[in-house]
Amino acid sequence: MIETPYLLFLGDAPDQLAAKVAQGIADWRPEHCVGQFRLPGCGADCGVPDMTLEEARAEGAQTMVIGVANRGGRFSPAWRDAMVAALEAGYDLASGLHTLLRNDPALVAAADAAGRALHDVRLPEDDYPIADGTPRSGKRCLAVGTDCSVGKMYTALAMDAEMRSRGLPSTFRATGQTGILITGEGVPLDAVIADFMAGAVEWLTPDNDADHWDHIEGQGSLYHPSFSGVTMALIHGGAPDALILCHEPTRTHMRGLPHYGLPTLEALRDTVLPLARIVNPACRVVGVSLNTRALDDAAAAQLVAETGARMRLPCTDPYRFGAGPLVDALMGT
Amino acid sequence: MIETPYLLFLGDAPDQLAAKVAQGIADWRPEHCVGQFRLPGCGADCGVPDMTLEEARAEGAQTMVIGVANRGGRFSPAWRDAMVAALEAGYDLASGLHTLLRNDPALVAAADAAGRALHDVRLPEDDYPIADGTPRSGKRCLAVGTDCSVGKMYTALAMDAEMRSRGLPSTFRATGQTGILITGEGVPLDAVIADFMAGAVEWLTPDNDADHWDHIEGQGSLYHPSFSGVTMALIHGGAPDALILCHEPTRTHMRGLPHYGLPTLEALRDTVLPLARIVNPACRVVGVSLNTRALDDAAAAQLVAETGARMRLPCTDPYRFGAGPLVDALMGT
Repeated sequence: MIETPYLLFLGDAPDQLAAKVAQGIADWRPEHCVGQFRLPGCGADCGVPDMTLEEARAEGAQTMVIGVANRGGRFSPAWRDAMVAALEAGYDLASGLHTLLRNDPALVAAADAAGRALHDVRLPEDDYPIADGTPRSGKRCLAVGTDCSVGKMYTALAMDAEMRSRGLPSTFRATGQTGILITGEGVPLDAVIADFMAGAVEWLTPDNDADHWDHIEGQGSLYHPSFSGVTMALIHGGAPDALILCHEPTRTHMRGLPHYGLPTLEALRDTVLPLARIVNPACRVVGVSLNTRALDDAAAAQLVAETGARMRLPCTDPYRFGAGPLVDALMGT
Repeated sequence: MIETPYLLFLGDAPDQLAAKVAQGIADWRPEHCVGQFRLPGCGADCGVPDMTLEEARAEGAQTMVIGVANRGGRFSPAWRDAMVAALEAGYDLASGLHTLLRNDPALVAAADAAGRALHDVRLPEDDYPIADGTPRSGKRCLAVGTDCSVGKMYTALAMDAEMRSRGLPSTFRATGQTGILITGEGVPLDAVIADFMAGAVEWLTPDNDADHWDHIEGQGSLYHPSFSGVTMALIHGGAPDALILCHEPTRTHMRGLPHYGLPTLEALRDTVLPLARIVNPACRVVGVSLNTRALDDAAAAQLVAETGARMRLPCTDPYRFGAGPLVDALMGT
């Protein structure tokens, strides 16, 4: 569990894309963000106040989150100086980078001296059980995609936010690095040992009140051969009551695999539902989430309408048009 | 790669079942077994000559394989004395036990002093790539099951043995601890990090001659919620040209999960084939393998005949009746 609130470290991010982890936190958990800390030359801005380490600490910030991607797998000297200074100022550090904080001797020494924690959310921090497939109380919704990176995490975050705005009991359950940094906890599923994947998802989504919904962050795709095993473990470990089909309509091939075309939404539905019902016979596909970022407003609205009619399911782009239709559908289950 | 030939260590195994790893090696790779080494009170016998450490070493044995399950997760003092003596006599040690050789200080010290290797086949020894789904030359056959422990490994070993007896190019590819000890190499798939599962299977089954068949050891079941993600990674990483459906006809529920019934062979076929065709559109289900151990000869023969007729597929119990029908079917693809 990572202590909040956060100071977002943007470093010398050349552009907004390089700071997308920080942007995700600022978008979805603004109440956790005291401010942002930028180095000279930073070209990103997450729309929260610029602060020094001391100013944010005075505002109560507990953890400095590395919200920027590093290039070449190394921390630059400027980054490291800032991170050491943060530890000395009383911050914990949290990072989802491949370059681990715990493998940097200067950071380890500074953290030890200051008595602060280094959170590498890329690595699992718990021992997970082997899944036992026992039904759990409460309800669960899982977003599944025609491909990787089609908006599954944003769909789950948007549905969780919509439910909470209506005063309905809801929790976003993070299964990836960015999601864990957004919420401060979760399971980095792609780094879990194979035998314990489904058990880690069961552990992440325990018994709950009968009307409570977990919105489980999806990973990979059943149609993406590199990561389909991780997706399968989410479907069986998560035991979802509801599935949301996620799709990016302009994608021409599976991410990173030019020789693989995307399945249709119909094929995804027909493949995932029987697999999900092995564990939860009551599972239903309740809606479609389109990532229409590449389309203009009119084209996006038209595609949403056409897709919903074609699939006979509620359909939206939850980031662009709101998650209301998906939450309405969920409440009907 | 574990050096052969082996001396099989049966320890003080109370019965034959406790020595089933050693029995698997003796059954499938008799040419690798110089003999067996038993302690007083041993109730198992793998049908190979009893030898002392010195006798087997004189016959050329390179590695002493721990072919017996330990109870309570610890090595008994008698085991440890025998293992230390083996290292001092010039053997490597190989083990698939949960209790790791490398975590036992006495064994580590003895191995270091003697310059010998400790092989814990429960742990991966390589860094595997992320799968890229690129088609590979050569052919691959994967056994998939209605449940765990229904005979997938024995099916693959029997088909490999049948092909080699006909002079056909064939390799058994081990994905579990017993399989790795039988062949001396492989991938302990259940211990691989999630993101690299499918890549490990691609690595294990590389490009080969056009008429060469890999017989890939299956793991878990798409219908077993604890391990279905591992099975999915095998289906997509293995990119099989041929699938064998494996079933144990007297099983009443999924192994370890009393609240889960088994799927029919028809359901397994209809679930697995579309998933396999995502990666290999030419994939076919070519036969059925029944584990009839619980039946008498007449009942086994009748069930094999009935199941083959019902599924319109070649069917056999490859351990009881031979793998000929399955290999015939494979040669027809």
